[in-house]
Amino acid sequence: MSQDALGLLFGDPFAVMNTIGLTAFALVGASKAIREEFDLLGLIIVGLAMAFAGGATRDLLVTRTPLALQSPIEISLGLLGVGLAIALSIVLESPETHPVTLVADAIGLAAFATTGAIVATEAGVSAFGIVAIATINAVGGGAVADILLDRPPFILFEDFYASCAVLGGAAYWVVGLLGVSAGTAAVVCALVTVGTRLVAVVFDWSLPTVQTLGLRSD
Amino acid sequence: MSQDALGLLFGDPFAVMNTIGLTAFALVGASKAIREEFDLLGLIIVGLAMAFAGGATRDLLVTRTPLALQSPIEISLGLLGVGLAIALSIVLESPETHPVTLVADAIGLAAFATTGAIVATEAGVSAFGIVAIATINAVGGGAVADILLDRPPFILFEDFYASCAVLGGAAYWVVGLLGVSAGTAAVVCALVTVGTRLVAVVFDWSLPTVQTLGLRSD
Amino acid sequence: MSQDALGLLFGDPFAVMNTIGLTAFALVGASKAIREEFDLLGLIIVGLAMAFAGGATRDLLVTRTPLALQSPIEISLGLLGVGLAIALSIVLESPETHPVTLVADAIGLAAFATTGAIVATEAGVSAFGIVAIATINAVGGGAVADILLDRPPFILFEDFYASCAVLGGAAYWVVGLLGVSAGTAAVVCALVTVGTRLVAVVFDWSLPTVQTLGLRSD
Repeated sequence: MSQDALGLLFGDPFAVMNTIGLTAFALVGASKAIREEFDLLGLIIVGLAMAFAGGATRDLLVTRTPLALQSPIEISLGLLGVGLAIALSIVLESPETHPVTLVADAIGLAAFATTGAIVATEAGVSAFGIVAIATINAVGGGAVADILLDRPPFILFEDFYASCAVLGGAAYWVVGLLGVSAGTAAVVCALVTVGTRLVAVVFDWSLPTVQTLGLRSD
Repeated sequence: MSQDALGLLFGDPFAVMNTIGLTAFALVGASKAIREEFDLLGLIIVGLAMAFAGGATRDLLVTRTPLALQSPIEISLGLLGVGLAIALSIVLESPETHPVTLVADAIGLAAFATTGAIVATEAGVSAFGIVAIATINAVGGGAVADILLDRPPFILFEDFYASCAVLGGAAYWVVGLLGVSAGTAAVVCALVTVGTRLVAVVFDWSLPTVQTLGLRSD
Repeated sequence: MSQDALGLLFGDPFAVMNTIGLTAFALVGASKAIREEFDLLGLIIVGLAMAFAGGATRDLLVTRTPLALQSPIEISLGLLGVGLAIALSIVLESPETHPVTLVADAIGLAAFATTGAIVATEAGVSAFGIVAIATINAVGGGAVADILLDRPPFILFEDFYASCAVLGGAAYWVVGLLGVSAGTAAVVCALVTVGTRLVAVVFDWSLPTVQTLGLRSD
């Protein structure tokens, strides 16, 4: 991809999106753990797991040691998000379901769909590989957090959650074909993901099931 | 392994077994998700997870990027299996427990035990490594599908399920020692796995527990 | 790290700790599965999963094929632990909660925190990476065993379990900075981990939650 104005303005799209995603998802994961009355180590683990699990899976899929284990910056951002969650839990009644947390989750989802698409493109996988790694990077943290919290992974029950990352990853691939800069592709991917997610939350969108499509009755 | 008649007839054993396994397991995984009334994206995810999780784990264990993210053929076969599951759900009453699905599951188990044994042998792991990777390739998809469906992994409760893949992987290793072709070893592995699995289903075989062996009473 | 008396006495710290950890964790995992009346294959799988899952995750994080798939010694030690669990289940009333099993679990935890710290240090990750890989190596097996047993991972509910491995990994890193031998660092890591774990069990230590700290009331 060539450089353009938006690309230059945006600097290193991976670093920007990674910073946003780590902080937002650590906040959301720790908020879930606080709700379940986990102890301090437990909420740090759930917060860091939510922040790091998607990216670590992404890194393993392109066979490299996870960045979270190599860079002191990643752990600092994760702990910042956990600290924000503890602060929020003091000032808010039920932070896990507060709009602040829902928006942070949508922003983290979009940021990590974008980092996934960037790393996958650099690794030279197929178009499906780009969409799959973008989606895994985006939803992996939430799935692992839910497993640690002993809940069924809500990414399968929230109709427009993983779907938003799928659309964002596909958008990244499509605009990449058009020859835009990596910065522009990152912005498009993030906006498509966070936009569809927030609209879906506000309007309570859901996908059809085989049953509601009227194809069969149970 | 040298080439022989069966080996030549069979062409590329990995490609044949991989094609069968991906289609069969995507069908079985999507059928389980339809039974649980998952939405369309959810059943695609469960179907693809069941088709890809075992092979992706196998690829990570031999430290390479999963084939499913590199080859457009893999995703096409997975979606074909999901499509077959939707078609079956329209014509059958309870497809998840129908003999068609049980047989598809046994065939997928055998096909993936074989691909696992082939990849492990090429990677030069130990005899235990061959059996372990064959088994993980065979049962990994079902285990991940059950976790996504929030069920206890049935591979631990079906007595002759993982056992069949263990026997198939061991058979692959033993006939490999005898110097047969890769094609012959693949056929032996697949037949041992699918044969023991179908006989176990028909005769309702079960393994002893420490309790039923009379070693202790609880 | 330079060689000193303790380092020479201890030989290969990784091999010593790995042998102890594999046997102890296979014993604990198989004991849990016997308690749940799993069949023989099931308890072998849970025992081996508990013995191997942490180390396999560690190896994947530093991008190498898990040792358990390459070395026949690892599988032998795992099966030895499973055999010990079956023997214990015959002579003891409830082996899963017997002091023998609790001590074996603490020893396995300490041994695997140490192998994790050794491998991470050799791989050249950050200080957080050393602590994280030590902790994952130590608690990964128990977490996977609990998931296979369809229990919530107890590592999140036992307050001083993962914490002990965190402390051990941190101790390994700190004494490493002081320039001691790998053998001495391994002994320090193992003693810190097993010591804090056993003291925590005896005195029933627990960490504070956000609620018990009085920061908020639910």
